[in-house]
Amino acid sequence: MFQTYDDTADPTLGAARVARLRSLLKEEGYAGFLIPRADEHQGEYVPPRAERLKWLTGFSGSAGLAAVLLDSAAIFVDGRYTLQVRTQVDTDVFQTCHLIDMPPQVWLAKHLKGGGKLAYDPWLHTVDSVKRLKTALVETGAELVALPENLIDRIWEDQPEPPAAPVTPHEEAYAGEEAQAKLERISATLKERKVDAAVLTMPDSIAWLFNIRGHDVSHTPLPLSFAIVKKDGTADLFIDERKLGPETRNHLGNIVAVHAPDAFGVNLGELGENGAKVQIDPASCADWINAKLLASGANVTHGADPCELPKACKNAREVDGARKAHERDGAALVRFLAWLDENAPSGKVTEIEAAKQLEAFRAESGLLKDISFDTISGAGPNGAIVHYRVTEKTDRALGPGELYLVDSGAQYLDGTTDVTRTIAIGKPSAEMKDRFTRVLKGHIALSMARYPEGTTGAQLDALARMALWQAGLDFDHGTGHGVGSYLSVHEGPQRISKAGHEPLRPGMIVSNEPGYYKTDAYGIRIENLQVVTAAAMIDGGERPMLGFETLTLAPIDRRLIDASLLTADEKAWLNAYHARVAKVVGAQVDEKTSAWLAEATRAV
Amino acid sequence: MFQTYDDTADPTLGAARVARLRSLLKEEGYAGFLIPRADEHQGEYVPPRAERLKWLTGFSGSAGLAAVLLDSAAIFVDGRYTLQVRTQVDTDVFQTCHLIDMPPQVWLAKHLKGGGKLAYDPWLHTVDSVKRLKTALVETGAELVALPENLIDRIWEDQPEPPAAPVTPHEEAYAGEEAQAKLERISATLKERKVDAAVLTMPDSIAWLFNIRGHDVSHTPLPLSFAIVKKDGTADLFIDERKLGPETRNHLGNIVAVHAPDAFGVNLGELGENGAKVQIDPASCADWINAKLLASGANVTHGADPCELPKACKNAREVDGARKAHERDGAALVRFLAWLDENAPSGKVTEIEAAKQLEAFRAESGLLKDISFDTISGAGPNGAIVHYRVTEKTDRALGPGELYLVDSGAQYLDGTTDVTRTIAIGKPSAEMKDRFTRVLKGHIALSMARYPEGTTGAQLDALARMALWQAGLDFDHGTGHGVGSYLSVHEGPQRISKAGHEPLRPGMIVSNEPGYYKTDAYGIRIENLQVVTAAAMIDGGERPMLGFETLTLAPIDRRLIDASLLTADEKAWLNAYHARVAKVVGAQVDEKTSAWLAEATRAV
Repeated sequence: MFQTYDDTADPTLGAARVARLRSLLKEEGYAGFLIPRADEHQGEYVPPRAERLKWLTGFSGSAGLAAVLLDSAAIFVDGRYTLQVRTQVDTDVFQTCHLIDMPPQVWLAKHLKGGGKLAYDPWLHTVDSVKRLKTALVETGAELVALPENLIDRIWEDQPEPPAAPVTPHEEAYAGEEAQAKLERISATLKERKVDAAVLTMPDSIAWLFNIRGHDVSHTPLPLSFAIVKKDGTADLFIDERKLGPETRNHLGNIVAVHAPDAFGVNLGELGENGAKVQIDPASCADWINAKLLASGANVTHGADPCELPKACKNAREVDGARKAHERDGAALVRFLAWLDENAPSGKVTEIEAAKQLEAFRAESGLLKDISFDTISGAGPNGAIVHYRVTEKTDRALGPGELYLVDSGAQYLDGTTDVTRTIAIGKPSAEMKDRFTRVLKGHIALSMARYPEGTTGAQLDALARMALWQAGLDFDHGTGHGVGSYLSVHEGPQRISKAGHEPLRPGMIVSNEPGYYKTDAYGIRIENLQVVTAAAMIDGGERPMLGFETLTLAPIDRRLIDASLLTADEKAWLNAYHARVAKVVGAQVDEKTSAWLAEATRAV
Repeated sequence: MFQTYDDTADPTLGAARVARLRSLLKEEGYAGFLIPRADEHQGEYVPPRAERLKWLTGFSGSAGLAAVLLDSAAIFVDGRYTLQVRTQVDTDVFQTCHLIDMPPQVWLAKHLKGGGKLAYDPWLHTVDSVKRLKTALVETGAELVALPENLIDRIWEDQPEPPAAPVTPHEEAYAGEEAQAKLERISATLKERKVDAAVLTMPDSIAWLFNIRGHDVSHTPLPLSFAIVKKDGTADLFIDERKLGPETRNHLGNIVAVHAPDAFGVNLGELGENGAKVQIDPASCADWINAKLLASGANVTHGADPCELPKACKNAREVDGARKAHERDGAALVRFLAWLDENAPSGKVTEIEAAKQLEAFRAESGLLKDISFDTISGAGPNGAIVHYRVTEKTDRALGPGELYLVDSGAQYLDGTTDVTRTIAIGKPSAEMKDRFTRVLKGHIALSMARYPEGTTGAQLDALARMALWQAGLDFDHGTGHGVGSYLSVHEGPQRISKAGHEPLRPGMIVSNEPGYYKTDAYGIRIENLQVVTAAAMIDGGERPMLGFETLTLAPIDRRLIDASLLTADEKAWLNAYHARVAKVVGAQVDEKTSAWLAEATRAV
């Protein structure tokens, strides 16, 4: 299984570990140290070695920062984690702060009034975040000091080693474009931007560019590494060579010079000594890299990672792979939903059991490489926790009259999936049906949208909310995120949210996942992935319009739909979608499941 | 009448005038001179004295820039004016350029390869635009030179004098807040922003702040002037004292120190000498002012005009005034539409006659201070020209089977109006009805929207387009602009467009005007003004939502509606709107008109 259900948080260890850190601070003459939940690549998933925040505090969320000063300490988390952090950390040791209400820089400015040296690990903070911190500390007189070694690493005795999982070539049958051709495209971009080289620090950019995949972190096939791409079309890859078997070595040998990780700093120094103009992405590039470049004389320029946009625009082969992955994934989901309908009425199916069963159905395809994130399996009130992760401690049975929300995804060689369905266990209330139908109306409105080139996710986001807004309701997350191709389940630059200012382009895959959450009662979310289709002329129209093709194939619970709230167009969309699900997925499942599917996809 | 229908453009004068300008350039040793369509305040309407671009080139549009070099000259206009400019200027003298395809800075960089001094009048260019020009010229070696006197003024023999129209107090019965209270609010903002003073260069800000109105330009009651507001709550107004009668002098005397225009520079210099931190708005502040402040030692900081946002959020009295103004205006419009229905079938009513008749109906109220812009009165193909202004030369009769588009507005003491209606003359085609109904669907979608605090116009703009986008259609202008209170018919910062990043706030008035334009055939636009309503809890809802109250009261042509394309909700909106129009306006018009209105507002 790719998921565990342990509750690994242990608040009782925090006090002693913070005490050891403080001894070290005193010894070295520092006023404090910053511990972000980050590795050198700023990814969503980090290897066990980089779980320093969790080791120190007990907090297991995917984003956060602790600041430990000599006499005070705080942990900063976003809205997803404000409740969780209080159960996972020792609140006598750590003040728990909401990132927006009390940003770290404000807290630090307040607590560092006496000045002193605030230490940080420059590998774990981005150029942008260090800049923000420096600005905030100006008035305190405190000084931000980059350390050559992480202080946690010095006190964490059984700290895991860095991962060294095998890296494999990602075949052209899936990638759809040779690495050499991609490298030529990127170096052409550099020439256009008049820069000599770009530093790549995001492993998914490197995986995309060189057509390789790894296994260094959970759920995303990342090969942790750094790269430098040059305008002359050459490139350097800095990676632990133990990860490379002969096949991969051979694959890479033709396109990129492979070096040990140690050589990265040396190479950055050489760029500087040659006075090169070097592009970094300040939103993701480690401060260490920027400092090294500047110290060695490079002309550092800022710009978005040059692989980000081409990676986001999937080619025909990748889109075709995504379709196949979703057909396969749809079959597993349909088997799961049929199983759920048969077993949940007993009142004995638990959240963990359901999640395990879903993973098992996916694994039976024989093609599951991983799940794409820890399954969110939430019954009743747990469904209202947007980023709920079930543990043995929180596990509960799916009770009658409750809603069950399951948000899950898979990694296949041909594509990454991410789907949410909300299921009525027994008879839903009229309110649940009203809310579900409004969420569905939003989902359909976004799904049916046609729009001209240049349109951004920010312009479309309201479509998915309007039916809720009209009733005085809303949801507190974006409507959609980008998704990779056998890569990160969350990728940029595209997104459907009020902050989504990147135009949608053909081949981009985005989620469409409006929701509604009633705290302590139930949660609703309907999520399909959809790919932006090429601009096409509509019959009788004058301008070509982009649109979406829905990739996800699974029934939407008819028992939760109040059909009287749907317009004729909305009903037509739903019935056509269900007919497609029945046809495509029905052909892949056994007779009994197929019969269940026929009923589940009946026209409204 | 407040509008003329002359075609004042005379392309034949351009060659001689440019020749005189070039002589002057040679005499003074300049490589060229820039002539923007702007006055010192960057307003949409400028006094006759500032119509230098029109005098030199013949071009009469409301935005544009000419560049005259020794051997070449060009005029730059936006998409609205690319056709018009070619008929108004001598294209042997001026290359006509689309602002986006060939921006002035690109053209200049190309034509100034030899370097030299490019002269400009620093009163007529904003801080931002001079910065852009300077950046563009860096590579040419040319130098941008601010002149103490405008070169056009030296060769324009019968140039009109600056206007000196009387300024009157804007009574609190309309303004709803005393000038003293406004001044206190603004100075509090300055204190918060830690600036000592702000320079106000936009006359509508000054008019709002001091509760005065003027008559220096057409269609907008602006008192051309400058002001400085200080954090201690004092203020200075720089205005031609001939504009001030005893009553106004008395009104102003209590709140602001009044100076002659000459004193403005002296006062700016004093701010600098005192080392004051002075805020300017670089998007509208003249380069001259910035240069003066910097030269005298001021600490210049950039920020939005501090009056812009409070002015945009109308108080209860202003909103109430807007309602009354729209009831009065609706009566004039209804009388006009009834008159049109009676007279247009003859085929003899022309665009000019219609516009005159509409103005006459408005004037009969006895309360019309001005029209708020030149009426767009376009029949058939002329309706497809978004910013059409009818002249004796282009005037045509409203023919059977055509659409007639009329976009007009009024200035009353209690409010500014702006309304567009599209009328079927005779029997419309099925295509016309399809397009009209899609435009109406967009109008209704925006009108019915409810949305949480913080929502911007950019998030709502797509609602007004979706019915068109679904059919492969669109329109090439924003959906809505802000409107002042007996002030500018176009005001910021709010707008409904993909560039509208200002949150909508209660009391803001915006237009809702989606359209559809078929070149050489017909144009459709449906425009109402609507005011953002305070956040209110919706029955059964959980979060307070903002919304819109429609201000404009006039029937939407039922003969152009294909009711089969409307949803039940859309029909309900239309019928409720028409019922309201019939009730409110019906009570103000004669029996015959009222009978016509009853038919025009019958339920669909």
